[in-house]
Amino acid sequence: MPNSFGKIFTISTWGESHGPGIGVVIDGCPPLLPLSEADIQAELDRRKPGQSDIVTPRKEEDKVEILSGVYEGRTTGTPLALWVRNGDHRSSAYSEMRDKFRPSHADFAYQAKYGVRDPNGGGRSSARETIGRVAAGAIAKKLLASVGVEIRAYVSRIHDIVMPDLAPGDFPSLSAIESTAVRCPHGPTAERMIERIKAVRSEGDSVGGLIRCQIRGVPPGWGEPVFDRLEADLGKAMLSLPATKGFEVGSGFGGTLLRGSEHNDVWQMRDGQPRTVTNRSGGIQGGISNGEEIYFTVAFKPTATILQAQATVDIHGMDTTLMGKGRHDACVLPRAVPIVEAMAALVLVDHHMRQTAQRRSFP
Amino acid sequence: MPNSFGKIFTISTWGESHGPGIGVVIDGCPPLLPLSEADIQAELDRRKPGQSDIVTPRKEEDKVEILSGVYEGRTTGTPLALWVRNGDHRSSAYSEMRDKFRPSHADFAYQAKYGVRDPNGGGRSSARETIGRVAAGAIAKKLLASVGVEIRAYVSRIHDIVMPDLAPGDFPSLSAIESTAVRCPHGPTAERMIERIKAVRSEGDSVGGLIRCQIRGVPPGWGEPVFDRLEADLGKAMLSLPATKGFEVGSGFGGTLLRGSEHNDVWQMRDGQPRTVTNRSGGIQGGISNGEEIYFTVAFKPTATILQAQATVDIHGMDTTLMGKGRHDACVLPRAVPIVEAMAALVLVDHHMRQTAQRRSFP
Amino acid sequence: MPNSFGKIFTISTWGESHGPGIGVVIDGCPPLLPLSEADIQAELDRRKPGQSDIVTPRKEEDKVEILSGVYEGRTTGTPLALWVRNGDHRSSAYSEMRDKFRPSHADFAYQAKYGVRDPNGGGRSSARETIGRVAAGAIAKKLLASVGVEIRAYVSRIHDIVMPDLAPGDFPSLSAIESTAVRCPHGPTAERMIERIKAVRSEGDSVGGLIRCQIRGVPPGWGEPVFDRLEADLGKAMLSLPATKGFEVGSGFGGTLLRGSEHNDVWQMRDGQPRTVTNRSGGIQGGISNGEEIYFTVAFKPTATILQAQATVDIHGMDTTLMGKGRHDACVLPRAVPIVEAMAALVLVDHHMRQTAQRRSFP
Amino acid sequence: MPNSFGKIFTISTWGESHGPGIGVVIDGCPPLLPLSEADIQAELDRRKPGQSDIVTPRKEEDKVEILSGVYEGRTTGTPLALWVRNGDHRSSAYSEMRDKFRPSHADFAYQAKYGVRDPNGGGRSSARETIGRVAAGAIAKKLLASVGVEIRAYVSRIHDIVMPDLAPGDFPSLSAIESTAVRCPHGPTAERMIERIKAVRSEGDSVGGLIRCQIRGVPPGWGEPVFDRLEADLGKAMLSLPATKGFEVGSGFGGTLLRGSEHNDVWQMRDGQPRTVTNRSGGIQGGISNGEEIYFTVAFKPTATILQAQATVDIHGMDTTLMGKGRHDACVLPRAVPIVEAMAALVLVDHHMRQTAQRRSFP
Repeated sequence: MPNSFGKIFTISTWGESHGPGIGVVIDGCPPLLPLSEADIQAELDRRKPGQSDIVTPRKEEDKVEILSGVYEGRTTGTPLALWVRNGDHRSSAYSEMRDKFRPSHADFAYQAKYGVRDPNGGGRSSARETIGRVAAGAIAKKLLASVGVEIRAYVSRIHDIVMPDLAPGDFPSLSAIESTAVRCPHGPTAERMIERIKAVRSEGDSVGGLIRCQIRGVPPGWGEPVFDRLEADLGKAMLSLPATKGFEVGSGFGGTLLRGSEHNDVWQMRDGQPRTVTNRSGGIQGGISNGEEIYFTVAFKPTATILQAQATVDIHGMDTTLMGKGRHDACVLPRAVPIVEAMAALVLVDHHMRQTAQRRSFP
Repeated sequence: MPNSFGKIFTISTWGESHGPGIGVVIDGCPPLLPLSEADIQAELDRRKPGQSDIVTPRKEEDKVEILSGVYEGRTTGTPLALWVRNGDHRSSAYSEMRDKFRPSHADFAYQAKYGVRDPNGGGRSSARETIGRVAAGAIAKKLLASVGVEIRAYVSRIHDIVMPDLAPGDFPSLSAIESTAVRCPHGPTAERMIERIKAVRSEGDSVGGLIRCQIRGVPPGWGEPVFDRLEADLGKAMLSLPATKGFEVGSGFGGTLLRGSEHNDVWQMRDGQPRTVTNRSGGIQGGISNGEEIYFTVAFKPTATILQAQATVDIHGMDTTLMGKGRHDACVLPRAVPIVEAMAALVLVDHHMRQTAQRRSFP
Repeated sequence: MPNSFGKIFTISTWGESHGPGIGVVIDGCPPLLPLSEADIQAELDRRKPGQSDIVTPRKEEDKVEILSGVYEGRTTGTPLALWVRNGDHRSSAYSEMRDKFRPSHADFAYQAKYGVRDPNGGGRSSARETIGRVAAGAIAKKLLASVGVEIRAYVSRIHDIVMPDLAPGDFPSLSAIESTAVRCPHGPTAERMIERIKAVRSEGDSVGGLIRCQIRGVPPGWGEPVFDRLEADLGKAMLSLPATKGFEVGSGFGGTLLRGSEHNDVWQMRDGQPRTVTNRSGGIQGGISNGEEIYFTVAFKPTATILQAQATVDIHGMDTTLMGKGRHDACVLPRAVPIVEAMAALVLVDHHMRQTAQRRSFP
Repeated sequence: MPNSFGKIFTISTWGESHGPGIGVVIDGCPPLLPLSEADIQAELDRRKPGQSDIVTPRKEEDKVEILSGVYEGRTTGTPLALWVRNGDHRSSAYSEMRDKFRPSHADFAYQAKYGVRDPNGGGRSSARETIGRVAAGAIAKKLLASVGVEIRAYVSRIHDIVMPDLAPGDFPSLSAIESTAVRCPHGPTAERMIERIKAVRSEGDSVGGLIRCQIRGVPPGWGEPVFDRLEADLGKAMLSLPATKGFEVGSGFGGTLLRGSEHNDVWQMRDGQPRTVTNRSGGIQGGISNGEEIYFTVAFKPTATILQAQATVDIHGMDTTLMGKGRHDACVLPRAVPIVEAMAALVLVDHHMRQTAQRRSFP
């Protein structure tokens, strides 16, 4: 089931960019959770197009409808089906794509894999598919909030503009992040990032960057060695997102420049609990949460769609040129922030439920 | 099944560092593959302790036995069970670990998760568990070779000693890699790496670094969007290995510093096939192989075990000190090279079989 | 994923009796299959209410809509989402059910399991859920037809009215089955069955019976020992249908009255193939198809809803009485015939694809 | 993973009749369960050959060894690996089987499926594979006992010799069952069954029959609609056993002869709980346990191996004759009783853990 994610709390997404809509089925959700469309809509509004002047102007309401699984305002424990109707189709903008493979897009790979592809807006490979993830993630976040887990993602770098390091223990507020169009909680950096995005966009070009995610409140014990380690499942979740090229947890790539004596997180008793003095492990050891803050970083490449002429080939095997058109994000990161949070939430809910099954079923 | 990996070609590992042995069950292996213990032993010998003077001197033969699934020298299509008996137990070396949590190890997390842990040699969290992966990977590599796929991993950085970039199209030979104890195909760099490892070891310290993996011969079409993208499954595979902190594919983290116009891989016809001129995508687009070389890099932290005194806490909740003892690798990377290859092979065999199922079942 | 079925060709159903609709997501469908809503509608029409004077008069068009996965009339290999809007809600008919548990229905069990239930029309436990199965099964049947596999189910007993045994090798025609409202291919028996159903219905009562299913064209080799034996997966498929109480394959329960010497299917060469002289194995040996016709029988209990007063308890823990109301089938079997076929088709497509993966991926 | 069973508490079996041994890996077992080899051996002794004068005299100790997952007498929550070495190989007895397909055995189907098979003792298709199930089931039964669930299987019919019906509420004692070689708790019937088995054996023939299983102590709420209904998973579990041809739960096939008004289980308050007056549902409604006793019946065909000459074909496609040899059970049912219990236990543990995950993870 390549379009399903999770072992116990499972989501299955469907839909294409220019079909009737995008949907998700959630199986295994606990019953009795109060849930309305408004709970979900809030997260979808964070990823929807047209929300600011640095994202694609495609006009989509992205209005969610709950089709099953809720009775009198609470989940029933049976499958939740959610969907968002697609609105602003402009297939004409994509007519050239029927015949030509866009560079660094999925066009050729889909054609090679399936022998057919829906070229309108990228079909299934469109980032609109992540609507289903964000909708399901909204429910996962609500569940996690009930056990004290908070997830906060934000843009930490756009192109070469880096946000200053936060002080240890700092957990950016949602309002700080949401107050800037680029979703970077450091105001002055955010301004420079926005300028950069506008500048490259005006040149028909694009940029990428980094999203950082911090998670607090996860108790020790989540994560399932040896293959379903928490960082492995978080990594898979992030690398399943369009445009991602890298993932690091805790000290990450930089940590490999330290010696063991510099890198190790020594233990001390704090407030009656074993706690680490530093947190280069990123809150995960041996694949299991250790009670410290979990943090990781995801690398997003520059948007493949650029409004410039590029060499390419067509489906008849001829060299040709493609001129980028259509409405696109010159930088996907601002809208990817809620998607990163959603995927993190889905991983965590699932691991919490797995841990419950193993530890709380028998006396 | 947290100890199983793969959807169709599936492995399940078991065993602890100091128990009777380490094993793996492989389900879904195609029948009729010629297979002997020697095929598997060759790969195990690349990961076994004591193979050179820069790895742990723990004495283990790591001799594999096939317990099922082979008849008259060929696989039968039913489960393959393989195991390696543990030999060189020195539980006494670990007696202190019963009571104290080793910094940056899995001890505390296992105790918190399960309420119990086998402290001898780290029990299940020991890297000896990867024996099962390497054994299964040997079979996967043999299958892949039959369809022209080659996987080559090597150490590209130890601490801050970096191997020079290879020229595009360069594919290091196995002999070049195996000719140095550190498994870096660039001789002069390898020498400096070995010196560094010996130097930090003599100080009771440790180092980490990077392993790079290149894969050639994968045809277009492997990888299963949207969640089981090829890079997502490769990333999960690598991040499920002990001591890994990061994964990047293609241009990775560095690629985020480029603009779209600099990053995109434009298409051209070459030898009658659509091919990319550059390969910043790393051979994967939209989660699917595109026929170009696949490459990725994995970050390994410095070994957590150091032969120095470190602050820690004990299982009674008291602050204390732990003095590292036992036989360990001051740097895990040389022995991790065949493990990276094994995990990559497992991912690829599985995805090839999934693609076959979807594309070759019906006319 | 309790609402998903299949390993490679996978369906996930959602929806309740009185919600907006009933749907199914199909993941893993091969691409390039010509598919229209008409292909699916034909099967849905066989299960829809109001189709004859012996089934429930609930008025539902059960009109299927394809929401994703088809491009220009062919499947794309990405998820197919199908749904049917619910129409003829009469929640008022169920108001009493909010408070009282219907005997031999799922009401109490759902309430106990989830702590909540949607009482309207049985909510998720309604047999309307099988719409998704039939829709997906229509696609599976179309795939199977392309490799020469035919599935034929029919009613072989209603209450104590048994259809005469078919001659060995007889494979009832679809038209013979569809020509009677009860879907029994033996006309005189069908008439008696219809009379019986009308008679018990007029008394506010209900009856059950047996559905037999024959499958021809399955080559040797489908089925996955040891747990996913073909008969085990067929059995699970059938026992996952509402109102089923038993499943037997080949000689079934009756075969246990024979001795081995009477029961064994001896081999002979026929048309150059090893064939069995008899077929008490039901076309499956050791969990694997052997090339003979597969056949099995499913037992359906009498409909639990009867239009009579029955003792029961309410959600407040008081003994009470419930008077059956609403529009129901006095016998579910005529409408269950296409559902049995659909589930069989789903099992077979999945097993064929699994076999392809294992046998056709490597030279 | 065709050789794995269960979603959370998962077993994977491996091994052939005449290989080094038979094993099982159990993943997802809760930690801290006291466990020794003796706990498991007791169940294996109930299925081992040579235990009485009506079963095969093959001499096997079937001595279990725990290879991983237990530390200081308690499970660790990591994989349990168990195995039993094969002892009494007599491959010579099977030399004829290399070339000839035994009637109603898996020989031809395995050959067709895999293109190869291990003919010694049936290889993987041997019932010795069930050793792994019984070993894992012993652990599952121990877990279930800790929450008050008891499983009791017994032989209710051999050939046409039927045990009298038990009174409602009767739950046969283990000692009553184990006191007869045939594992039928009704002494006089057991004697007749034993005589029948001996009589048919003396003629080189075989018989089958029915095993009934009763389960008490399951609370309301286990079972996962719509596909993983409790009866569907029990049915699959039983139909995955060698030689099974049918499964029925509750009123089963016989219940289809009743009208709804006769079949329904009406509710009444009893001891403060909603309880059914009758139990034709077999303790399961809508796929979920309802708190009543669960019971089902499994049909086992007569043993395929008979010591008589039978027509067959050989692997060269020639008609021939096979004379049955070797040591076999003229009736598998006495030894199948603990296997039925084991599979039932595995299903129930898994469903209990799934229910815990969904209901106890969040407040």
